[in-house]
Amino acid sequence: MKVINETIKLHTKGNPDLINITDKVAGLLEGSKLKKGLVTVFVIGSTASLTTFEYEPGLIQDVQEFYEKIIPQNKHYHHDATWGDANGFSHLRSSLQGSSLSIPFDEGRLLLGTWQQVVLAEFDNRPRDRKIVVQIIGE
Amino acid sequence: MKVINETIKLHTKGNPDLINITDKVAGLLEGSKLKKGLVTVFVIGSTASLTTFEYEPGLIQDVQEFYEKIIPQNKHYHHDATWGDANGFSHLRSSLQGSSLSIPFDEGRLLLGTWQQVVLAEFDNRPRDRKIVVQIIGE
Amino acid sequence: MKVINETIKLHTKGNPDLINITDKVAGLLEGSKLKKGLVTVFVIGSTASLTTFEYEPGLIQDVQEFYEKIIPQNKHYHHDATWGDANGFSHLRSSLQGSSLSIPFDEGRLLLGTWQQVVLAEFDNRPRDRKIVVQIIGE
Repeated sequence: MKVINETIKLHTKGNPDLINITDKVAGLLEGSKLKKGLVTVFVIGSTASLTTFEYEPGLIQDVQEFYEKIIPQNKHYHHDATWGDANGFSHLRSSLQGSSLSIPFDEGRLLLGTWQQVVLAEFDNRPRDRKIVVQIIGE
Repeated sequence: MKVINETIKLHTKGNPDLINITDKVAGLLEGSKLKKGLVTVFVIGSTASLTTFEYEPGLIQDVQEFYEKIIPQNKHYHHDATWGDANGFSHLRSSLQGSSLSIPFDEGRLLLGTWQQVVLAEFDNRPRDRKIVVQIIGE
Repeated sequence: MKVINETIKLHTKGNPDLINITDKVAGLLEGSKLKKGLVTVFVIGSTASLTTFEYEPGLIQDVQEFYEKIIPQNKHYHHDATWGDANGFSHLRSSLQGSSLSIPFDEGRLLLGTWQQVVLAEFDNRPRDRKIVVQIIGE
């Protein structure tokens, strides 16, 4: 059993940027030469999240509209008064959706479905440089 | 330390089928003979999820009504236009709720609460054959 | 590779108590002497959750108001009829938000952002004694 920590660095456009990182994660797994184990994908920071969905234009728009419905951008949040940066909605969305994904792998391949992509959700209200940890534990 | 990948296969009835798989997961853990470590439960596909709740009829109905409230079935989603299969709501629910659970175990037993069951949530709008990966890492 | 199971015990005030447990988790990691691996934080029970957010008074209030908006306390839930304990909302919030967090660590430190705290969300409608499993897998 080994543990390997890798990092994906991304420049995002700010909310509501949804970026498919499946190939990057799969590439790091392939480079590790490990065959069976667990990949943990973790985004550092409190205004972004990770999720999985079928990455196609219609659903991308549906996901964006869903977040806008349950946690609207143009609303006052108490957090906005703390720092004056108007991204309270970004923090709430990130807290709800979560910072990590756990994906088993076998025979060197992520056990994802064909239509199940790994997506970074950028919720912050400005472009950001993101660091995403890809941790591979296995043998 | 060892890593073991097992699979649970289930036939579901389609949305809003909520299936208690706690005993199946616990049985696979028992079969592994491992005593201390981490179980990751992961559903392959983009229209189902895993969650935990007290599996009793009242709460089952509450969970179903909650999903119907925040992501209604009878609404048009952009995804529906992509494939014409009218299951945009299924994808959105799955992306929100998530594909995996992480459950520590000790002395060969899952560290769940008495009223904390592992539940597969089938969100797709038709019956499906599901594969759920149960990965056991430990010693 | 080793696996270590530790427990944090907390007394909560009942909903909507949000408790920052980052230092406790980091302290257990430091005590383990492990340098690289995965921390899984898991709350036992079906009426609490774990999440991450910037732990400051404005956002604490935003998170509380968000849960009250999507899963209101003063509404009848079917679960309430089952046990007569009026905490159906607590169970629904817990099922949505989730019971666990997965956090990679390296050089003996959790790979959290500066404003990304580990928070126990107590949703139950009365004070509770909580047990939170902190599992450290690594080398």
